[in-house]
Parts: sequence; structure tokens; C-alpha cells
Amino acid sequence: VSRSYAIIGTGAIGGFYGAQLSRAGFDVHFLARSDADFIRSNGLFVESTDGNFNIPHVNVYQNARSMPRCDVVAIALKSTANNILPDVLPWVVKKNGVVLVLQNGLGAEEEVAQIIKDTSVLGVLCFVCASKTGPGRIKHLAFGHVTIGQFTSNGRPSGITSVMRDISTDFSKAGIVSENLPDLGAARWKKLVWNVPYSGLSVMLSATTEAINANPHSRQLAHDMMREVCMAAAACGHSLEQPVPDMMVNYTDTMPPYAPSMKLDYDAKRPMEVESIFGNPLRAAQNAGVQVPRLEMLYRELAFLDKMNRKQ
Amino acid sequence: VSRSYAIIGTGAIGGFYGAQLSRAGFDVHFLARSDADFIRSNGLFVESTDGNFNIPHVNVYQNARSMPRCDVVAIALKSTANNILPDVLPWVVKKNGVVLVLQNGLGAEEEVAQIIKDTSVLGVLCFVCASKTGPGRIKHLAFGHVTIGQFTSNGRPSGITSVMRDISTDFSKAGIVSENLPDLGAARWKKLVWNVPYSGLSVMLSATTEAINANPHSRQLAHDMMREVCMAAAACGHSLEQPVPDMMVNYTDTMPPYAPSMKLDYDAKRPMEVESIFGNPLRAAQNAGVQVPRLEMLYRELAFLDKMNRKQ
Repeated sequence: VSRSYAIIGTGAIGGFYGAQLSRAGFDVHFLARSDADFIRSNGLFVESTDGNFNIPHVNVYQNARSMPRCDVVAIALKSTANNILPDVLPWVVKKNGVVLVLQNGLGAEEEVAQIIKDTSVLGVLCFVCASKTGPGRIKHLAFGHVTIGQFTSNGRPSGITSVMRDISTDFSKAGIVSENLPDLGAARWKKLVWNVPYSGLSVMLSATTEAINANPHSRQLAHDMMREVCMAAAACGHSLEQPVPDMMVNYTDTMPPYAPSMKLDYDAKRPMEVESIFGNPLRAAQNAGVQVPRLEMLYRELAFLDKMNRKQ
Repeated sequence: VSRSYAIIGTGAIGGFYGAQLSRAGFDVHFLARSDADFIRSNGLFVESTDGNFNIPHVNVYQNARSMPRCDVVAIALKSTANNILPDVLPWVVKKNGVVLVLQNGLGAEEEVAQIIKDTSVLGVLCFVCASKTGPGRIKHLAFGHVTIGQFTSNGRPSGITSVMRDISTDFSKAGIVSENLPDLGAARWKKLVWNVPYSGLSVMLSATTEAINANPHSRQLAHDMMREVCMAAAACGHSLEQPVPDMMVNYTDTMPPYAPSMKLDYDAKRPMEVESIFGNPLRAAQNAGVQVPRLEMLYRELAFLDKMNRKQ
């Protein structure tokens, strides 16, 4: 019997990966907010460079209490909405179930582990350019692979666990390329190396990844921020390879011009993930005794803009 | 016989101080650009909290070559327009004359000294909230005093010179409160302590001084930047008193909500004084071996925005 999946949040990420699991025949249940009725009537549509597809019949819910308990619960909310998790997870997670955190930044796995005991909590890092373009409609622009790591309460590497293997087997059946990593913390920090400069600067400079890389000042700034994040990761016990900043800046040259989701959130006056992507890493670095002045400045600038943006 | 004055640039600063000298009976000649004809017909109007006044008959020129040589030449251009100085100064400065640099940031006095030899070059730091609100029209919001220091080619303190005394005597007659300072470098750096955070953040955060101070993140950021600028000043041989950052942040609370001229320039898609206020101090700090990551980041952010702003 194949595992059942609950997808908490049917935005770009939840919609894209949930639709792929649905297409492969998994029993998938989606929690949605504004477009639940639309999806119930019209299904999900994924517009993708890998080929468009739609899921005509979708199990969709507006309230977690209506959902069946599932073997695997994938959290695909914006981290700014994680305050709803105590009202969601106890209703959908099976005993000895698995929770996947498909979010950026730091801190969400700890929150989940405090809400639900006796559960495997995995971080799933999504390397995908996708956005929600309308009700029940996801546009997939590039990439799509994920890396998987298991949360440990002491922050030490878990190694490759059987739960991770189960999930990546399911993902493989659904056409989702995944890689199991022994150290979730290292994986999360490595992703932050990209996210901190490009998400943050996309808002501060009102620029795509392409524009950031094309100007020598912002390119250097992205690189310098990456070095700070690498230093912070190392101080937190997760050494990244030396040439990561160079590699990531150059890699970004090969991406299509991309507005990170933080930029879309800002423009739409939605809350930005300032604490998970900037605040939590900053505090982790400070606790580890590392100076990260650019990360701190970016955090403060974004915290200011986020507050103003929601006042208006 | 009283000294004659040439005012190079009839914006907020040149218009405000030039009008005060005119009102006191000095022989003043203005170089203006777009509103030269308007001023010739209508004069200058200063709307001020200290009392409105106008100068009905103004000697105004569009070309420096038409101007008479003056005893004192006051440069009140945006520093971004300093590339015109080699075509201006040789025509208006008298032999053994005085040049006043009424600009923010670092580097202008060196430029002037290279263009004109045998001239006293003084820096005049204007502590004034004023803006140009229309042709020939200046709005004075608050303050207005200046500090005066003499440029020396080796960067060492000049002490109080007789030229400084002459100028401050003239200013006093015109109702301009001035203070002579023995170390121009220290005065310039001290002003940068305010200008770097408030001018820079007003653009990055689209905020007035009041909004910057009201949010704990941006207030802290302003303070942290001030500390960097103080460290850079010290490394360049100009020690500022220890409590300068606290004092300046608190002092700014007492100011009227103010959009620095850099913010007005940005909004009007005019060039911003990125190099004089950020680039030159940054390079001075780096040459002195000081790390100023927030100043550097702000410089790079503003350089990016300035370039984009002028492309559009």
C-alpha cells in the first residue's frame, strides 16, 4: 500500500510537488485557503517547461480538521504562516508519521518537533523556480530537484535514514529528483548561501537575479554576503566547501532571469519570510560568535520594509 | 570695500546662502542652469521659518565666462556635477581668491585645488534643511548654520586662518551663523556620520529621518553605520568624540521629519551623490585598513540603484 500525503499549503511549492505526487497515483490531500473551491471544481494546472499537465480531481480542504490523517504531511506554507501549525499538524499527522518541511531558512523543523512528538521530521529543500499565477494554477519555470535531510534535536548529522529513503523512493516514482543528505543543517545553510543575497537584494534593489549579477556592485555584494553566510554555517558546525560563493554566483548566471518569491511577496504586499531566511540565521551566527554585518544589515532593512509594507 | 561673491549653482544651498549674502548688500553673482531666465525676471524667493524674503534683482548667469571674477567663489553644485568645474573656476576665481566648497562628502577640495592654484580652498559644511521647490524658489525648513575649515594638501589641521575669519565675518553680516574649525577633515567626517546613514537609508528604505528613527531595526542600523564612519574617521587621523553616534541619533529625533536631498534626487531620477558621500569615504577607510562593511554595502546598493534610476 502506498503512503498517503497531506500537502499543507497549495501555493507554488505545495501545488507543484503535490500535483506531481497526484499524477503518479499517490493518495494526496491538499489544504488550501483562498482557492480551495476553485481547485475542487477545476483541479490543479501546472504549466511547465517539462510539459504542462493538470490534475482534474483534487482532494482539497479549507480546514485541517476535515482532512484524513496521512502517512506523510508536507508543510508548504510560507514560513510567515507557521503560526497556524499547532492548529493543523495534530489533526493530520498519523502516529509515527512523517512531516516534511518544504520551506526555506532555519527554525521550522524545531517548531514542528515541538508541536508533534513521535514523528520523523525531514527538511526538504526545493531547488525550483515556480510561482503561483492564479487560482489552482502553478507556473514551473526551471529546475525542480530537492534535497532531503532528517532533523535531529541536537543539530548533529542524522546520516541517511530509512525514512529518508522511503520518501525519496516515493519522490522518484513521482518524477521528482531527490538527493538524501546526511546533514540537514549543512543543506539548509548551503541553500541560505543563495537565498540570503538573491532574495534579499531582489527586494532591496527591485531587481531580478540577472540584474543583480549584471552590475559589478551588486554582484560583489551578493558574493560578500555569501561569504558571511558560509562563515556563519562553519561556526554553527556545518562547513561548506570553500568555493561555494564563486560557484553559486556563476551558477546564477545560467538561470533564467528570476524574481525570487520574496520579491513577489513584497510587491503583492504579502508578509516576507524575513525571520526564517534572515533573522534566524543571523541569531544563529551571533550565538556562534560570528560577525555577519551584511546579513544583519539586510535583515534590518528588510524588517523595516516588511513592516512598512503591511502598514500601508 | 566688501568682498564680491560668485555662487556656482543656484539650488537649495546656493540659493539660500547666496540670497542671504545678497540681502546683506554683498555683491553676489549666481551661476544658474534651468531657471536663470526666471531668476533674472523674478528674482529669488526664500520661504523660511525665520521669515520669508525675496531678492528682486539678481545678477544671474548661465555661462561662467560671462561672470565677473569674484573675491570669493562658492561651489554649491551637486558633487555629481563637479566635472564642470574645470570649465567654470578658471573664469570666475580672482588671483589669490577664495573658493568655498559647500558640498557634502569627501574629495571636492582636492579637485578644486588641482584646478586652481594660488587659491585658499575652504570647506563650508551647511547644517540646513532646505529644498528647491520651484524656479528661483527655495524652501528653508530648519537650521542654517555652517562650519568652516581650510583645506590643506597634506590633510593636516590648518588651525584657524585669517581667510576663515574673513569669511565668517562676512557670513555674520549676512545673518549666517558660522563656526571656524581647525580641522576640516574632522568636520567633514563628522558630517558624514549623519549623512551616510540618513541619506543612504532614506533612499534604500524610502523613508524620512523620522521613520528611520521610529523603527528599532533602522534606528539600530543608523547607529551601527555611524560607528563605522567614526572608526574610519579615526583611522584617517580625525578622532571624533566617543558618544557621537548616540548623540546624532537622538538629535535627529528633534528634527522635523526630513527627506534628505539624496532621497529627493532619487525620486526625481537625478544623479545621487554616491561617490562623494559613500564611495570616497569607503575608499579612504579601506586605504586606512578599516573594515566598514555596512558603509560598503550601502555604497554598493546605492550605486546599483543610481545606475538603474538613470537608465530608465
